[in-house]
Amino acid sequence: MKSQYENQERLLAAVDCIIFGFDGYELKLLLIKRGFEPEKGKWSLMGGFVQAQETPEEAAARVLRQLTGLRDVYMEQMLVFGKPDRDPLERTLSITYYALIDIKKYEKQISSEYKAEWFTLDRVPKLIFDHNQMLEHAKQRLRYKAALHPILFELLPEKFTIPQIMTLYEQVYDVELDKRNFTRKLRSTGLLIKQLDKDKLNSKKGAFYYKLNQATYKDKFTAFLNFIPNPGITTTNP
Amino acid sequence: MKSQYENQERLLAAVDCIIFGFDGYELKLLLIKRGFEPEKGKWSLMGGFVQAQETPEEAAARVLRQLTGLRDVYMEQMLVFGKPDRDPLERTLSITYYALIDIKKYEKQISSEYKAEWFTLDRVPKLIFDHNQMLEHAKQRLRYKAALHPILFELLPEKFTIPQIMTLYEQVYDVELDKRNFTRKLRSTGLLIKQLDKDKLNSKKGAFYYKLNQATYKDKFTAFLNFIPNPGITTTNP
Repeated sequence: MKSQYENQERLLAAVDCIIFGFDGYELKLLLIKRGFEPEKGKWSLMGGFVQAQETPEEAAARVLRQLTGLRDVYMEQMLVFGKPDRDPLERTLSITYYALIDIKKYEKQISSEYKAEWFTLDRVPKLIFDHNQMLEHAKQRLRYKAALHPILFELLPEKFTIPQIMTLYEQVYDVELDKRNFTRKLRSTGLLIKQLDKDKLNSKKGAFYYKLNQATYKDKFTAFLNFIPNPGITTTNP
Repeated sequence: MKSQYENQERLLAAVDCIIFGFDGYELKLLLIKRGFEPEKGKWSLMGGFVQAQETPEEAAARVLRQLTGLRDVYMEQMLVFGKPDRDPLERTLSITYYALIDIKKYEKQISSEYKAEWFTLDRVPKLIFDHNQMLEHAKQRLRYKAALHPILFELLPEKFTIPQIMTLYEQVYDVELDKRNFTRKLRSTGLLIKQLDKDKLNSKKGAFYYKLNQATYKDKFTAFLNFIPNPGITTTNP
């Protein structure tokens, strides 16, 4: 008797990473110029094929490490993109991941193997295949998650100011926030430890530095904090 | 020059569906006896291979339709399970979906092609491969989503009572809820339309029937409602 497996289609499985970074001022996306056909030389998300001995998670971590030199990056699996003709050369399922990194850390470890570049979200070029759709989905997912959980802290340097966090939230949600309300809400989470020194580069008065309270961060990570009461979520599949 | 695609591994892609149903009294899971090797005759989630001309979503909808006869079922993609050896016969990625159905609707359309059976969540048998893990993940995801969005209404019949909804929430979260608070919270959502008749089978006093306000349901679907303030979420990857 023939196995049920026999006449099934074999296909390629890839991972594609939507890598968000923050440099203290702007939220950005890391893109590369694709190094092989089809679409060689075009802007693309960083990706790679899932190898025989690795899980998709391991493939995504490998791809991130190759490009940024960073390990233990915050990364979350999103949707599988699976239209039969999404890759013109051969059927390839893509499992997408979004990652959040502090651009300053990345800069120290940059790999020269790939032509990589940071783009602000309003200047993202046309990407290969369905990568622009993947990005849209990642932005939605980031908005959804960040409204409930303190994941945006993954993008901040070890020492940061409240104006920096607020800028980050404003860019993620494309809104203007009320400084007083936001500061009160943020302080009430117990996530911040005030430092003695100030950032004096970005304002006359200066802004105190804060560090993240790691214990509170771990505790509160899975609780619903409602940072943004009405985040304008439009996806039903976070 | 060789294509970058050439030496990559081709693998099988499957979908597996975690199908939750509610019969008005109990939350249940639909399982089948696997019809082919390996693990033939063992309890399994309903699944199937992704075909050449279909997307994973189409494959999951097809699998659901084959088993239950139902179309337009509420279904959401979850994680990809991708350990290289998860299927002993050949490497198979599984894209998981959870689905929510009203068991009464299902009963009218049951297919006799599969040996399917409903299990209450406390009596789920050992399943093949990593299917028990998939189920655990689906329970977590259901808890997460249902704490924020009114998705559990997908499980209810057209006419339902408040005690029924409460039983459903209690079973999903494995908690006892305060009837007064829960009723007040539920009424304040504007999701319910009170009917003139009562269900008199399940209590002496009877309980009024309600219908779902479809317009409010659509409006509020993506808003954060906080049905359950502390749902005891343990996953960081909803």
